[in-house]
Amino acid sequence: MLNVQVEIRRFVDGDWPGVWEILHSVIEAGDTYEYPPGASAAEGRALWLVAPPAEVWVAVDGGRVLGSYKIGANRIGLADHVANGSYIVSTEARGRGVGRALGEHSLLRARELGFAAMQFNAVVSTNTSALRLWRSLGFIIVGTVPNGFRHSRFGLVDFHIMHRFL
Amino acid sequence: MLNVQVEIRRFVDGDWPGVWEILHSVIEAGDTYEYPPGASAAEGRALWLVAPPAEVWVAVDGGRVLGSYKIGANRIGLADHVANGSYIVSTEARGRGVGRALGEHSLLRARELGFAAMQFNAVVSTNTSALRLWRSLGFIIVGTVPNGFRHSRFGLVDFHIMHRFL
Repeated sequence: MLNVQVEIRRFVDGDWPGVWEILHSVIEAGDTYEYPPGASAAEGRALWLVAPPAEVWVAVDGGRVLGSYKIGANRIGLADHVANGSYIVSTEARGRGVGRALGEHSLLRARELGFAAMQFNAVVSTNTSALRLWRSLGFIIVGTVPNGFRHSRFGLVDFHIMHRFL
Repeated sequence: MLNVQVEIRRFVDGDWPGVWEILHSVIEAGDTYEYPPGASAAEGRALWLVAPPAEVWVAVDGGRVLGSYKIGANRIGLADHVANGSYIVSTEARGRGVGRALGEHSLLRARELGFAAMQFNAVVSTNTSALRLWRSLGFIIVGTVPNGFRHSRFGLVDFHIMHRFL
């Protein structure tokens, strides 16, 4: 299923226009991430381009950015052994396995970085393709925040907290 | 139970030495918050003195700081209708109802600020006094992150996610 031309590598500055095109579309849809609709490119940069030691990766096909993920500690200090990841895929690349490739890559990377587990704090309950993907990669729902998300079309819906050990 | 001399008011700069004394003790205990043991006063300031529109409040008895809480949105954008609070009480003031007074105050304040719910992301599972207090104030456990916290004495223990509507 995965297009073999997809390469996953660290984000470089020249990737930003391609990443922002995807992120902007995700933000404006208002159905998978809480990032505020109407956010500027500068605000988008601040949201996505996390500071080291957190990392940003991209999936590219030739020169084209198909998706991206960011990974870092979910919390600080005595809880920094649990990673957090966020993932975006371009509309035209969906169904090509890019999300799965990013997810699998991020789990390997999290292990390399020494994390003991990966946690997602806010998986929108109506985002069934994300739920299906994360379940197939070994995540389970460990909690549900009722009405945690103001979905652009459905109004208040739940967030799921998902987790897996590495 | 609550000592009537306890006043809850907004934090002012002169409160910092008293707040830091409590926060430092909480951090060094390593049993209720993930803040990194060994954190400096400057790091403590950055952790506790959240930027507006988030707020910091203190419980004082005369000139003495007995406890503090901070309150703000738990997440941004389409999830910023859910508040988050953090609470500390000095060792010598425990059992005097200061934590309960801060908790009740923060729920009223969260309502005033327009939040629809309050969520705690990381209540240490062995912190039974906190769990008892939050349950008595209407919170329920909506999720549990296994081994999310490296407790200074017990090693890896769970985090509970607690929630209540306002």
